[in-house]
Amino acid sequence: MSTMITEHRTWSRHLPAEFGVWDITPETVSLAGEFGICNGTLTLQAVGSTAAITTIEYEPGALADLHRALEALAPAGASYAHNDRWGDGNGFSHVRSALLKTGVSLPIIDGSLALGTWQQIVVINLDNRDRDREVVAMVMGSRG
Amino acid sequence: MSTMITEHRTWSRHLPAEFGVWDITPETVSLAGEFGICNGTLTLQAVGSTAAITTIEYEPGALADLHRALEALAPAGASYAHNDRWGDGNGFSHVRSALLKTGVSLPIIDGSLALGTWQQIVVINLDNRDRDREVVAMVMGSRG
Amino acid sequence: MSTMITEHRTWSRHLPAEFGVWDITPETVSLAGEFGICNGTLTLQAVGSTAAITTIEYEPGALADLHRALEALAPAGASYAHNDRWGDGNGFSHVRSALLKTGVSLPIIDGSLALGTWQQIVVINLDNRDRDREVVAMVMGSRG
Repeated sequence: MSTMITEHRTWSRHLPAEFGVWDITPETVSLAGEFGICNGTLTLQAVGSTAAITTIEYEPGALADLHRALEALAPAGASYAHNDRWGDGNGFSHVRSALLKTGVSLPIIDGSLALGTWQQIVVINLDNRDRDREVVAMVMGSRG
Repeated sequence: MSTMITEHRTWSRHLPAEFGVWDITPETVSLAGEFGICNGTLTLQAVGSTAAITTIEYEPGALADLHRALEALAPAGASYAHNDRWGDGNGFSHVRSALLKTGVSLPIIDGSLALGTWQQIVVINLDNRDRDREVVAMVMGSRG
Repeated sequence: MSTMITEHRTWSRHLPAEFGVWDITPETVSLAGEFGICNGTLTLQAVGSTAAITTIEYEPGALADLHRALEALAPAGASYAHNDRWGDGNGFSHVRSALLKTGVSLPIIDGSLALGTWQQIVVINLDNRDRDREVVAMVMGSRG
């Protein structure tokens, strides 16, 4: 038993349209140590309904394959009821974001995120235009 | 450092079959304030293996587009091994729920959920019959 | 208000290739009681970029249906940029893992996980070879 630490951080980065990927692992792996948390959780959220967060091996091949799978799930060129109503052309972005979701939560064990060696946390801008994307991290846990 | 608050709430709502959507954002945005939590997390779970929770822009177009994408992923009219064994006809519901998943976790920062302006939290009844769906919220965090 | 408990556990199991499923519900339902946690969260992570965790009704039919849906999403026999670069043939595994994701978080209410009667937590080895898969659990919460 121990006293709880709740610390947070927000980052923002300009990302390309459609599949603009940001490997946010370097930003997140150091948080537990910085805030003096030994055991707890990291809860990440990419703010907005046309973004996503997941984990993947951060290498161009796997990323291209994920992009292609998302294109098959919700083709950019298909017709969307969202586009018919709002005319902004990013109906595919909304569908992809709702399927992939915008957050992940990870255990922090002995000060380290529970991630594999070839597993990175990626933020993806799925919108049909390049955008600044904001990511919020909540780190919660104990010292001991 | 501060003392932890752990509070929970359960809601239930009757939802239509196949794609019965409930925007649960109004219920959840007020929880942090009500429980006096400044920084922490909200962990939501739609109980059951034929439900889902995700975030999306809550407007009829985007919802219809998500419904159509789920229909392409696991068509209601296809044949399913689950149906062959159990005869309840909701094999597609189980597949869609396992892919979308039944929970989300969100940071609470300065008393507010880390959500975009056009981003709502939705509970979806994916079953092939209308049902009461139960949603459980755990709010955990600190006052300061 | 009460003092926080943060406890963790790691399990490992050898799982078959492509869709090796492990029902980890029995291991996880007892953790809250074991650690004396009444209210809080369980955060689970299957370590690695070719694994996944989700919830589903743990019966052979629903599992076979999910496997088939994953095969449609990212066919094992398709060509992948990851395979072209690395030659390890598990491009489909990476795509499926990134789409399904490797973690779940669940509320713990009055000592019990917020799960339905027919809803189990499953770890899936999606790699193209059988492997030992490691799962990390963080249980965080309060006694009262």
